Amino acid sequence: MAKDFPTREENYSQWYNDIVIKADLAENSAVRGCMVIKPYGYAIWEKMQAALDKMFKDTGHSNAYFPIFIPKSFFSREASHVEGFAKECAIVTHYRLKKSPDGKGVVVDEDSKLEEELIVRPTSETIIWDSYRNWIKSYRDLPILINQWANVVRWEMRTRLFLRTTEFLWQEGHTAHATEEEAIEETEKILDLYSEFAEKWMALPVIKGVKSENERFAGALETYCIEALMQDGKALQAGTSHFLGQNFAKAFDVKFATKEGTLEYVWATSWGVSTRLMGALVMAHSDDNGLVLPPKLAPIQVVIIPIYKNTDQLKEISEKVKPIKKAIESRGISVKYDDRDTFKPGWKFAEYELKGVPVRLAIGPRDIEQGTVEVARRDTLEKSIYQQTDIEHKIENLLSQIQENLYQKAFSFKELNTFTVNSWAEFKDIIDNKGGFISAHWDGTSETEEAIKNETKATIRCIPLDNKKENGKCVYSGKPSAQRVIFAKAY
Amino acid sequence: MAKDFPTREENYSQWYNDIVIKADLAENSAVRGCMVIKPYGYAIWEKMQAALDKMFKDTGHSNAYFPIFIPKSFFSREASHVEGFAKECAIVTHYRLKKSPDGKGVVVDEDSKLEEELIVRPTSETIIWDSYRNWIKSYRDLPILINQWANVVRWEMRTRLFLRTTEFLWQEGHTAHATEEEAIEETEKILDLYSEFAEKWMALPVIKGVKSENERFAGALETYCIEALMQDGKALQAGTSHFLGQNFAKAFDVKFATKEGTLEYVWATSWGVSTRLMGALVMAHSDDNGLVLPPKLAPIQVVIIPIYKNTDQLKEISEKVKPIKKAIESRGISVKYDDRDTFKPGWKFAEYELKGVPVRLAIGPRDIEQGTVEVARRDTLEKSIYQQTDIEHKIENLLSQIQENLYQKAFSFKELNTFTVNSWAEFKDIIDNKGGFISAHWDGTSETEEAIKNETKATIRCIPLDNKKENGKCVYSGKPSAQRVIFAKAY
Repeated sequence: MAKDFPTREENYSQWYNDIVIKADLAENSAVRGCMVIKPYGYAIWEKMQAALDKMFKDTGHSNAYFPIFIPKSFFSREASHVEGFAKECAIVTHYRLKKSPDGKGVVVDEDSKLEEELIVRPTSETIIWDSYRNWIKSYRDLPILINQWANVVRWEMRTRLFLRTTEFLWQEGHTAHATEEEAIEETEKILDLYSEFAEKWMALPVIKGVKSENERFAGALETYCIEALMQDGKALQAGTSHFLGQNFAKAFDVKFATKEGTLEYVWATSWGVSTRLMGALVMAHSDDNGLVLPPKLAPIQVVIIPIYKNTDQLKEISEKVKPIKKAIESRGISVKYDDRDTFKPGWKFAEYELKGVPVRLAIGPRDIEQGTVEVARRDTLEKSIYQQTDIEHKIENLLSQIQENLYQKAFSFKELNTFTVNSWAEFKDIIDNKGGFISAHWDGTSETEEAIKNETKATIRCIPLDNKKENGKCVYSGKPSAQRVIFAKAY
Repeated sequence: MAKDFPTREENYSQWYNDIVIKADLAENSAVRGCMVIKPYGYAIWEKMQAALDKMFKDTGHSNAYFPIFIPKSFFSREASHVEGFAKECAIVTHYRLKKSPDGKGVVVDEDSKLEEELIVRPTSETIIWDSYRNWIKSYRDLPILINQWANVVRWEMRTRLFLRTTEFLWQEGHTAHATEEEAIEETEKILDLYSEFAEKWMALPVIKGVKSENERFAGALETYCIEALMQDGKALQAGTSHFLGQNFAKAFDVKFATKEGTLEYVWATSWGVSTRLMGALVMAHSDDNGLVLPPKLAPIQVVIIPIYKNTDQLKEISEKVKPIKKAIESRGISVKYDDRDTFKPGWKFAEYELKGVPVRLAIGPRDIEQGTVEVARRDTLEKSIYQQTDIEHKIENLLSQIQENLYQKAFSFKELNTFTVNSWAEFKDIIDNKGGFISAHWDGTSETEEAIKNETKATIRCIPLDNKKENGKCVYSGKPSAQRVIFAKAY
């Protein structure tokens, strides 16, 4: 398997696209902007889903399912929500095809026009709050803590596999609370959950913060987010958690009787992560040889490749591999033994490197003699010789080390590429020549934010939660500022 | 909680609907024909998914994801496929909304009309085989064994929760093979898998068979199915597995190079089960007190209810319950302790009965004194007193017994309601007055099948796979017949 794609330095964008395609994660479909997630890519997504789903359930959430279609009129009920999504809606207008009069193929049956058009959900706040109205009568019905795993559609003009697709998969949590405090607490709890998932599972360090008003979710009072840094110095928003206040309760008239007998509007949150995380995972760790996966999300954690000259040798090696494979699997580690005779070891090495399998074991006749095995790490590309004794614990430790190493590497990268900037000249220099996160003072106005965006394409990624208050001057306008915020160019 | 729904005898259809609603499984949404699957219902579906998903993976299948939209022209490529689905397609024609000129709400932006309309998938053969064309070059790329968990849309005029909804959730397997034999083998293997799932997990006995030509999937050469019998004597198709021959390979030009170097069309199968199984589950086991769930699919398998007069008693009981709950949970059994002070024990008893929780434990002051616990089975409504010693094994055994008992009960019901019929008078009498499966001779023609359907509403459910060949005369036409087939009215 010859490497036939550019390095990151040569063409970062092409490098990303080629890895997604060549590692068999996903591909474009015949439908504009919609991707096919292939089995290897989907297996990674399933591992993400399983980890997140457990975290949601451990914090008291249940899954449910709401309709994919939303009546058009629902969108108009929350003014900023419709404004945010109107321009990217797939719209169902008819429900029947009929034979074409010319006998060739089928055409839309005009008699099947819908009285009210249906929108394929771009997000589900409206249809869910329409249901919650019937579910919530009194404080005893609260909180409602529901999550949904679903597909959503946002009509995008420029799409990229995983990062921006017309249809994508995600989870969306929608919770209802009796008090403002409780809803804010939920919003923050989920942000912590997302950040823990990113760091522990994806080996991806993130900055937790809140969005500026410009970047807020359409219909939210506050949008919390986690922001990660990719290897090209661009930021990627990896998850958002919204405090929706009483906006949707008011739009859908959802009130509850308090303990004291008064009638109040319900408080809401919503939050989501999507298959976009797959793009973040690829971009955060991969190298010029291909995909690099953190062991906790790798569908195949260990691959074993026999090195042999003839079928007798292969048979002997296969016998020796059996107990090794079994021992490693006994630690809950997924192992693939690739004894295909149709490919040479070198080809297989390159293939599993491309696919990001964290650990590769090779066993040849000399290893059989000496009771050894060759161990190669995908993250550092280092090779070592291990004694076969106690191999399962050695591999288990190695996988932990790789997981930790990937996180540390990404963490150092983020630290090295976060710049504290005090002048506009420096700001522009870094944005133009280095990229990365820029920590700078901002006067708090949308005008300044827009102006900076227009001049540099950098946006405010977030106002970090752990910000220390610090008086300063806005890097652009020179007006007073009470704290620094994080700027970056972003995906 | 007062029982406020009809018995099966009074109004079977209303009884079904009320159980689905009152047991909190699902409800109708604001979108015509689309349901909301509520957390308790979704938890049952998740258990079904987990069991099926493991069975698919254990037999070598992987999950993937294909686009929800299908270009209209794809449908026309397979003639019988388009004929089967054209009349029930949700059609996306535009991709943008804009502000209404009158300022009220939003309207479809006519400038966003699509060049080619997109169909919301009613099933995915066409979009998947369009992808397979690029994946399959040689025999080395075969077989492809892929499954997808997805939502699909079929525009239905008359809908019923779970049984027939415009949008539903399902899994659809799509496999590609080098030979006809291998594809048929796959079709049959999946039928066996479905039947095992129905019997072992859902406690639902089924008849395995093939459909007559009339009832075949649009585009299939042979449709295999499992058919179950509901308590009102109507049949329910619980799963289908289709042998598609080379139809889709020809429609999408998918050829492969054989070992011998020739170019051949690929052989295909597809197969699916859906949230319709939830309807089957409700109808198969439930009684006039509410839902009855087989333990293997129950989200809560055991509920513990304290019986107390004051908070001191409640405190004492709660202390005693802790180790009991923990012991039972140690066997992998899900236990809920309902110590809510807002509801009386009698109300809770009725609620968990309605929700089909298989085992209810009640513990009061006398039980504390005597080291006992009151055990109630949901299936038989029997109560017993157990000593607390070794409670986890007793409960584990009891759950197995309940699972087995539900299957046996459903099996006996099916046996008692399967009639071997030799005359048309008898056929009509049974269909009109008893319902059930009718095993009768049929001359093999679509005309006779149609005539029987028109006169009685009964259809051929299947030609059983284990049929013995037996010469006879068609129950309707009197013409010669080589075997009996199964007739019934069906959902």
